[in-house]
Amino acid sequence: MSRVVVAFHSGYGHTRSVAQAVKEGAASVPGVSAELLDVTQTAEPGWASLAAADAIVFGSPTYMGGVSADFKKFADESAKVWFTQGWKNKIAGGFTCSLNMSGDKYSTLMYFVTLAMQHSMVWVGTGLMPGRQPGHPDEINRLGSAIGVMAQADNVPPDQSPPAGDIETARLYGKRIGEMSVRGVRQ
Amino acid sequence: MSRVVVAFHSGYGHTRSVAQAVKEGAASVPGVSAELLDVTQTAEPGWASLAAADAIVFGSPTYMGGVSADFKKFADESAKVWFTQGWKNKIAGGFTCSLNMSGDKYSTLMYFVTLAMQHSMVWVGTGLMPGRQPGHPDEINRLGSAIGVMAQADNVPPDQSPPAGDIETARLYGKRIGEMSVRGVRQ
Amino acid sequence: MSRVVVAFHSGYGHTRSVAQAVKEGAASVPGVSAELLDVTQTAEPGWASLAAADAIVFGSPTYMGGVSADFKKFADESAKVWFTQGWKNKIAGGFTCSLNMSGDKYSTLMYFVTLAMQHSMVWVGTGLMPGRQPGHPDEINRLGSAIGVMAQADNVPPDQSPPAGDIETARLYGKRIGEMSVRGVRQ
Amino acid sequence: MSRVVVAFHSGYGHTRSVAQAVKEGAASVPGVSAELLDVTQTAEPGWASLAAADAIVFGSPTYMGGVSADFKKFADESAKVWFTQGWKNKIAGGFTCSLNMSGDKYSTLMYFVTLAMQHSMVWVGTGLMPGRQPGHPDEINRLGSAIGVMAQADNVPPDQSPPAGDIETARLYGKRIGEMSVRGVRQ
Repeated sequence: MSRVVVAFHSGYGHTRSVAQAVKEGAASVPGVSAELLDVTQTAEPGWASLAAADAIVFGSPTYMGGVSADFKKFADESAKVWFTQGWKNKIAGGFTCSLNMSGDKYSTLMYFVTLAMQHSMVWVGTGLMPGRQPGHPDEINRLGSAIGVMAQADNVPPDQSPPAGDIETARLYGKRIGEMSVRGVRQ
Repeated sequence: MSRVVVAFHSGYGHTRSVAQAVKEGAASVPGVSAELLDVTQTAEPGWASLAAADAIVFGSPTYMGGVSADFKKFADESAKVWFTQGWKNKIAGGFTCSLNMSGDKYSTLMYFVTLAMQHSMVWVGTGLMPGRQPGHPDEINRLGSAIGVMAQADNVPPDQSPPAGDIETARLYGKRIGEMSVRGVRQ
Repeated sequence: MSRVVVAFHSGYGHTRSVAQAVKEGAASVPGVSAELLDVTQTAEPGWASLAAADAIVFGSPTYMGGVSADFKKFADESAKVWFTQGWKNKIAGGFTCSLNMSGDKYSTLMYFVTLAMQHSMVWVGTGLMPGRQPGHPDEINRLGSAIGVMAQADNVPPDQSPPAGDIETARLYGKRIGEMSVRGVRQ
Repeated sequence: MSRVVVAFHSGYGHTRSVAQAVKEGAASVPGVSAELLDVTQTAEPGWASLAAADAIVFGSPTYMGGVSADFKKFADESAKVWFTQGWKNKIAGGFTCSLNMSGDKYSTLMYFVTLAMQHSMVWVGTGLMPGRQPGHPDEINRLGSAIGVMAQADNVPPDQSPPAGDIETARLYGKRIGEMSVRGVRQ
């Protein structure tokens, strides 16, 4: 079995919904087991799960133009893995969620790329063309992001937002990550 | 008179509409003269206009995740100004326009910041809170950008898109730049 | 009096040395008072100092490719200021320090720019040309950074590193920030 | 045979030296053929080579804080490949060279990542820990870059600079890219 870990922080539950969809997409691939890891709860077996993973997908809300402090705490703690390059050549991906359509979500995703590169991981983006109806809530990749998944959530409970299109985008991304972890990058 | 130059490239006219709105916003400030400079047409007096400017606002579509090659050609040519730091302490700003809601517009804006910093300019962002109805075409700052203006245009003629909200956002940004150039940054 | 606050986090003291030099440079300008604010110690009067500042210079080591979690915690807490745009039009700047010559210091500086823009601040870079002897420890701006100060420190106590050139670079940056805060951006 | 194409622009020959080293590193891997492609010379068979590649490594000097206009022209022209996602799942990497130790090289590398993600490629970084003697000309990864190779060249002919350490860093990176293209990402 190939193992995908979705390592995320969520402040109010919206980013958790995206994380859940990524996990489900990965788990839908034959030969893949997928799990959620809340990075504020990394007491063992959190680090052991990450060490055993074939792919790690990072997730965080965008707070004040970047990853949340809670996620950054996890990233800084991963320095102990970095010293031994324990995640080298694992597949990496990322997603973020915030109130705005664009805002500084790219900043958050680029931080994930930077973190993954320090760990010598291999970055896999969405592989999705931009949605043809930009911004439409049912559209796949409605915000037009290639690096990782950008989701947008209104100030309502997480069962109402982000909309169906963003959740499906996250599911497709999880599927892509899962496929990559099973077959390798090139067929 | 304080002088604002909007130095832009536009492929199909949508970015030109945004540039025009920035110019009008700047020109609405008493004591400000504003002009458009198509950076593919910088034969004199283009460089002289830029040398005389109090503020320069950079504009480009986002093509393949960054400023257009035409804009980059202008940026590279500005190396001759960089050697003498001829734009030092001028106010700088920027805007971009593309088909997607988010895409990689942040990448384009951050490039403008990087360029402006090499020229020792002072960067002024939108100064606008994100719109309360994210993505709504009539909303000011509907995409939620602080660094500079992000506009979104559909594949229709420039008189139909970007929508009114984006144009008004650009106008308000031009006004902010104009005010800064007249009174200085702090009152 | 114009007031400059250097809001920084330092893990082992190297970034504190840079912060101290920025403060001294600012304080050397007639009409400027400058102070250090350790962002892990922002119990009042920290936020009151920031509210009263004319310029805020952000500082953090670069940890795992970005600002430290401690700095990010401060940035996230500044959301309460963001809601009221309490720092609007203040001058902003930034600096970082890490073991490598380049590494991902740009990522940290760009995060500071992004944070400052969300606060509608005005960004002032180093205003320094790259040093003519790249990397030389006595050289001003030896790493060639325009956005903010990049310093490099070896794994030795902070009284031995970063070298004299980096400290002087920070002092000159503080002076530039101080001058901007007194006279406004344009003369 | 697995095929690696190094698609680069070089203004004065320094970036070409880095490109050559990446190519040699890739070609040193059994089962890999590697070739240089000057992106200002992409008349056929350039695009055909890229279409047939298993891995594409992008290279450009850093001019005015980003890729050169010549490289950007190539990137913009690749939009025709983007429409059909012709490079999907190919391995991607990148390198840059400039006069400064750090400067804005990260900006150039991040642009390469952004471009690669739009093409749904898979990004592979240096996989190298930072050199233990930061900046030393014989050191591997002396500038401490993970995303891609950062090289530094003085204003002397390309046979004298960048130094041996940077050239060897580029060779090792090419080797890593070559290995990835042969065996896939995970063993």
